[in-house]
Amino acid sequence: MLKAEDNEILTRTDPGTPMGDMMRRFWIPFMTSKELPEADGAPLRVTLLGEQLLAFRDTDGRVGLIDEFCPHRRASLFFGRNEECGIRCVYHGWKFDVEGKCLEVPSEPADSTLARKVRLTAYPVREAGGVLWAYMGPKGEEGALPNIEWLSLPLPHVYVSRWEQESNYFQALEGEIDSSHVSFLHRQLDAKDAPKGSLSGAWFTGDTAPKWTIDQHSHGLTLAARRTVEDGAGYWRMNQFMLPFYTMIAPEPGGYITNRMWVPKDDTHCWVICATYRPDKPLTEDDLEKFTAGKFAHRRVLPGTTIPMERMENDYGLDRRLQKTVSYTGIPGVRAQDAMVTETAGPIADRTKEHLGTSDTAIIAARKLMIDAAKRFRDGTVPEAAAGGDIYAVRSWSSVLPASVKSYRDDPDTMAAMRTAGQKRDRQTVDA
Amino acid sequence: MLKAEDNEILTRTDPGTPMGDMMRRFWIPFMTSKELPEADGAPLRVTLLGEQLLAFRDTDGRVGLIDEFCPHRRASLFFGRNEECGIRCVYHGWKFDVEGKCLEVPSEPADSTLARKVRLTAYPVREAGGVLWAYMGPKGEEGALPNIEWLSLPLPHVYVSRWEQESNYFQALEGEIDSSHVSFLHRQLDAKDAPKGSLSGAWFTGDTAPKWTIDQHSHGLTLAARRTVEDGAGYWRMNQFMLPFYTMIAPEPGGYITNRMWVPKDDTHCWVICATYRPDKPLTEDDLEKFTAGKFAHRRVLPGTTIPMERMENDYGLDRRLQKTVSYTGIPGVRAQDAMVTETAGPIADRTKEHLGTSDTAIIAARKLMIDAAKRFRDGTVPEAAAGGDIYAVRSWSSVLPASVKSYRDDPDTMAAMRTAGQKRDRQTVDA
Amino acid sequence: MLKAEDNEILTRTDPGTPMGDMMRRFWIPFMTSKELPEADGAPLRVTLLGEQLLAFRDTDGRVGLIDEFCPHRRASLFFGRNEECGIRCVYHGWKFDVEGKCLEVPSEPADSTLARKVRLTAYPVREAGGVLWAYMGPKGEEGALPNIEWLSLPLPHVYVSRWEQESNYFQALEGEIDSSHVSFLHRQLDAKDAPKGSLSGAWFTGDTAPKWTIDQHSHGLTLAARRTVEDGAGYWRMNQFMLPFYTMIAPEPGGYITNRMWVPKDDTHCWVICATYRPDKPLTEDDLEKFTAGKFAHRRVLPGTTIPMERMENDYGLDRRLQKTVSYTGIPGVRAQDAMVTETAGPIADRTKEHLGTSDTAIIAARKLMIDAAKRFRDGTVPEAAAGGDIYAVRSWSSVLPASVKSYRDDPDTMAAMRTAGQKRDRQTVDA
Repeated sequence: MLKAEDNEILTRTDPGTPMGDMMRRFWIPFMTSKELPEADGAPLRVTLLGEQLLAFRDTDGRVGLIDEFCPHRRASLFFGRNEECGIRCVYHGWKFDVEGKCLEVPSEPADSTLARKVRLTAYPVREAGGVLWAYMGPKGEEGALPNIEWLSLPLPHVYVSRWEQESNYFQALEGEIDSSHVSFLHRQLDAKDAPKGSLSGAWFTGDTAPKWTIDQHSHGLTLAARRTVEDGAGYWRMNQFMLPFYTMIAPEPGGYITNRMWVPKDDTHCWVICATYRPDKPLTEDDLEKFTAGKFAHRRVLPGTTIPMERMENDYGLDRRLQKTVSYTGIPGVRAQDAMVTETAGPIADRTKEHLGTSDTAIIAARKLMIDAAKRFRDGTVPEAAAGGDIYAVRSWSSVLPASVKSYRDDPDTMAAMRTAGQKRDRQTVDA
Repeated sequence: MLKAEDNEILTRTDPGTPMGDMMRRFWIPFMTSKELPEADGAPLRVTLLGEQLLAFRDTDGRVGLIDEFCPHRRASLFFGRNEECGIRCVYHGWKFDVEGKCLEVPSEPADSTLARKVRLTAYPVREAGGVLWAYMGPKGEEGALPNIEWLSLPLPHVYVSRWEQESNYFQALEGEIDSSHVSFLHRQLDAKDAPKGSLSGAWFTGDTAPKWTIDQHSHGLTLAARRTVEDGAGYWRMNQFMLPFYTMIAPEPGGYITNRMWVPKDDTHCWVICATYRPDKPLTEDDLEKFTAGKFAHRRVLPGTTIPMERMENDYGLDRRLQKTVSYTGIPGVRAQDAMVTETAGPIADRTKEHLGTSDTAIIAARKLMIDAAKRFRDGTVPEAAAGGDIYAVRSWSSVLPASVKSYRDDPDTMAAMRTAGQKRDRQTVDA
Repeated sequence: MLKAEDNEILTRTDPGTPMGDMMRRFWIPFMTSKELPEADGAPLRVTLLGEQLLAFRDTDGRVGLIDEFCPHRRASLFFGRNEECGIRCVYHGWKFDVEGKCLEVPSEPADSTLARKVRLTAYPVREAGGVLWAYMGPKGEEGALPNIEWLSLPLPHVYVSRWEQESNYFQALEGEIDSSHVSFLHRQLDAKDAPKGSLSGAWFTGDTAPKWTIDQHSHGLTLAARRTVEDGAGYWRMNQFMLPFYTMIAPEPGGYITNRMWVPKDDTHCWVICATYRPDKPLTEDDLEKFTAGKFAHRRVLPGTTIPMERMENDYGLDRRLQKTVSYTGIPGVRAQDAMVTETAGPIADRTKEHLGTSDTAIIAARKLMIDAAKRFRDGTVPEAAAGGDIYAVRSWSSVLPASVKSYRDDPDTMAAMRTAGQKRDRQTVDA
């Protein structure tokens, strides 16, 4: 449980809040590139950290992320004309470029100096790994993009998608780093012969009380959950929590790797941006078929929207008969199951009413890290991770290690697997 | 009219309010038994006096009424697994019984003592007369169930249903004890030959300004409205208002008896639980056909819900042509007519803006009784009626008495009819 | 831009606000006569300046505008029986006439004096020009109806309609007097050969930075925008802003004249009542066909409602393909285009965030006039225009004047065209 004031610090991200201002020192992923496919195409509204913004791709392919409302008389620029390297308000023809510069005020006399005085809020945007990133902090203070592995891979190695969650970002994120719940929430009752390491496999159902080892790094935390399996061996799953809202959960053996981003939309909603990738080769046809259908790591949404099919208003597609015999929840899909447990805790979970156990060690550590960082930021210290780059060149991993190995850190192969090629490369190439 | 502060006392029932805390000393009917038909079946959410709760029937058929949210990390237990004498949160498998006792915390080590420390809010539940009752007050202070007549009858004598009203409980209740409106609201314009004592009959249309006699008892109030009919005789209708939210209106001659319960859901919505019964014999096929169709004493709802078909958003099915020629309101059904006049006064009627007359004597008395009781409770006195039992062994009734009879109290037959068999029985048998 | 406190004064019209109380000294148009077509017909709810009211036409054809809620127990009189020169609450049969007088309280004894003591809030209503007008101010302080030209024309000269806008009244009104936006918002991209003075014509596209001449009168402001056209001539458009919420925009040459009324519903919604008329002759078949279809000056609404077809929730029917090639906005209809730019600025535009230019001279003047008038009213001075009558006998107009004419005021023909016949008539005939 958390004190009410700490819960406020953890969950509030509007401008002027400690956490919100701290987050604004990081690059913030806000959309996939494919959602803004073409030059001069339709702009998209996107609320981010409580700000109503508009994203558009200009004639030259550059992406702008701007205040949705025209600084003249506040009409929505969503309805603007995206043309000739700028967006033009249809009310009086005022035009702005992706940097917020006012290019024309045709409703004013030719000798008007108004254009020079007016500025539209605009945030620097970068495009990498099929995702759009914005920097919403004070000018000139931005670091590099985080060098998360998939950001330096060829695009065919990566698939990204975006959907919306109806809760505060942090409880959504907690659901992801909570290795403990895998023994329950995602269990298939009819999967008696599931591979040991699969979600319904013996490694998860056999030991439902994993023990945690937590290590703090510049990027955030490595959260290792150990389950005892055959012969006292340890099934170790190392998840990464990377400041300020990234998670990487351990891949299934031999599978692709997943990196999720839990980005505040406003205090009671968040964007989930999900990247799945194979470090060594392009994604397969089979991978892509599953991912585009919203299966496995991704999520089914109403076509043309970011709204999940299974959601609060339809009880996540709950089927009570299936819950008796087929799956632990009766809810279709791992992602919908996660959303259900985290969204139903309320728009902002009241953490003063919780009762935590040892299984919650990881989320306790992640909360503390974030709250302490926000408090330190309030006192003047920017988190080291805001510098981005190779600080983020880490991986999640899982290993089965003999009983004699006390910690995953003692296994050189595991430690090697958790380092990415990026750690040896120049991070400037990522930002290019 | 009422002072604003008294209106607040009358209408607010969240935890910590005088009225809310006083009500919590009574058994509170919250659902019909048939809504939770089977052991280990689907739980149902129910908000009650502002608390978000969950009802479920366990493997042994016992009903639990618990906090909807798991005390661990606040996921909704609505999605829980109802199995093996308890409800199990699907997030981490924590399990609770109907008494709120934590039975298992499988995400913790085998030697964990956490289960002993965690408790889920759970209210004692009893099942009687086809209705589920909860006690939400301080432990050990509960009285007996109210011995209202139908609670000790064989179940085939009784039919119960539940629906929702979009207003504060008390204005809904006021509509029920307001005998005066029967001369207007429910009139059929095309019912010239209606029996005298029916809703459109001559006894109601002939004297539209009934005179009230109010008697206070331990259970609450007997509210007698006298209309002058042929030869100066009195058509007396004795309604009962029983603390804290029960009403019984006078049966039509020879008909079944109705007891309604106006239970706060939250301050702006209430549950209406309606029991109709015949003291002397089982309900007839004809009775049941009408009741299950939502006619007469009951209400038509959207199938599978507690939402009335005729409601605010569809103007209660108002048909202006029918209002000209067929019925006084043009709204189909007595219950929808009642809901319209009470709901349209607002989520919480602003009683500072009323203008009351002698016809409002009954509601004035009922308000005063409730407000005084809540104030006395705030000062330390629990209402006598909270003891339950035979205090509630009363009936509503109606009689036509000669002009010479000044009060219904002077007529021995009427007085006998208003007593139930229960007054002579051991009330313990009711609670069994 | 405006100080926050001045924006509050400008936009708030509930009872007790300076602007709201000032407006209540004027006659307020609230509905078209044809919406209440027949004696004893269905009443209509209408919220006005934040008050929930009910309009009905009684047996004698008189219109009442009353508090929606019965003063007895606050049931909605919308469900009342409109019969025998009054509206009767269906709860207890209390009956009120169009003046709010209580005619009957049949639930009370015959000798009751209650009817004499109870009064229902009722506002005086007049009917003129096919529109219903109410006076909501202190008794006896009402002036004459405003003698706007169409109010004294035969009804076949006039067409009126009403719809709703999802924003504060003043930003809606600002869109109307803002002549500058015509050069942009309403442009058809495929109308190369449009007549010079039409919305997509050369006079508008050729000079997009009109210069303003503002003249203050008793009625409000004459707002003249001059665009330079061929040979340095001036294309002058004189719009009228008439206190407290009327606008008349310059007619297209030879066309009908339009007068719009932007009446506060509540602080975040307004009624738009639109009158189109020909001073010299009845409207043509062609006029009426367009207007009833919601084209040109009027608006398409969902049948049987005042809700526009193109509105915020459906992005005003935006078609991005059409925006590329056919029209400046891709939104169908001039009215929907206006609603889009004014509604998207928010329920109440935040004028502290604006950046105004010389093109905004007219709205700056209109804001100042209104804010100053409200402040003076707060200090005890009623605006002269509240007297109504011939103060309003003005017209909007447009003229092309040679370069040598420095102001529209110097052109006698223009000045004559802006006076109406009404200026010479007895305004009492208007109110009849």
